[in-house]
Amino acid sequence: MLTNLEHLGLAVNDLEAATILYTTLLGQEPYKREHVESEAVDTVFFQVGGSKIELLAGTSPNSAITKYLEKKPDGIHHVAFAVTDIRAEMARLRAAGFTLLNEEPKRGADNKLVCFIHPKSANGVLVELCQDMVPLT
Amino acid sequence: MLTNLEHLGLAVNDLEAATILYTTLLGQEPYKREHVESEAVDTVFFQVGGSKIELLAGTSPNSAITKYLEKKPDGIHHVAFAVTDIRAEMARLRAAGFTLLNEEPKRGADNKLVCFIHPKSANGVLVELCQDMVPLT
Repeated sequence: MLTNLEHLGLAVNDLEAATILYTTLLGQEPYKREHVESEAVDTVFFQVGGSKIELLAGTSPNSAITKYLEKKPDGIHHVAFAVTDIRAEMARLRAAGFTLLNEEPKRGADNKLVCFIHPKSANGVLVELCQDMVPLT
Repeated sequence: MLTNLEHLGLAVNDLEAATILYTTLLGQEPYKREHVESEAVDTVFFQVGGSKIELLAGTSPNSAITKYLEKKPDGIHHVAFAVTDIRAEMARLRAAGFTLLNEEPKRGADNKLVCFIHPKSANGVLVELCQDMVPLT
């Protein structure tokens, strides 16, 4: 079961301009900036109630965000839902016929394990499952 | 200030098929179906943590959802943020240069007063402000 709308990821060409715009729109400053080397993105996070708005800008031509913005204008890139057991949810959804874009959970921004579901499986929406990573004991 | 990511609105061509798909994806049944005559839409709502997923299908050629789906495939149509004083937020955002699509709050689905912000004002995202309506005392 998906337990929360954890964040909405917005692809932006100009991260500084989008940060200023969303600071005004949301009426608050972002709480975090993070570079995610594995995804070649710079991110800016805003907390809005129990969910986050994540602005994403590519930092390399190979970034999924850069490639997305070569075809489409700035806009909503993905929607991420929190799960408590990402491997169990991946198995459940794979068995139900959803196409997963990664076979194993991978490390995403904001200290999460993530898995993406193909938009063709989900009515045109790129869906991310994410689970908080806990320190090894 | 925008206080919560209240819901994500998804435009769909086939409401029954999308309802079955999202019931499986989210791992739960919808909690409400509502026809909104003023917007000429049928809606299906799922509760996911503190936010909702709203599936929207047009019921007339004049519906904004029908027109949207003539140009684009199924996908995310709008993102709605809760506000506690919609008129104050509308005035704040109008003064900051955002283009509002309605000058006065209008009645939306799910017992809300709503106002939309033009996507050109918000990095390509159709933003809805929504405030719970309270009974007249």
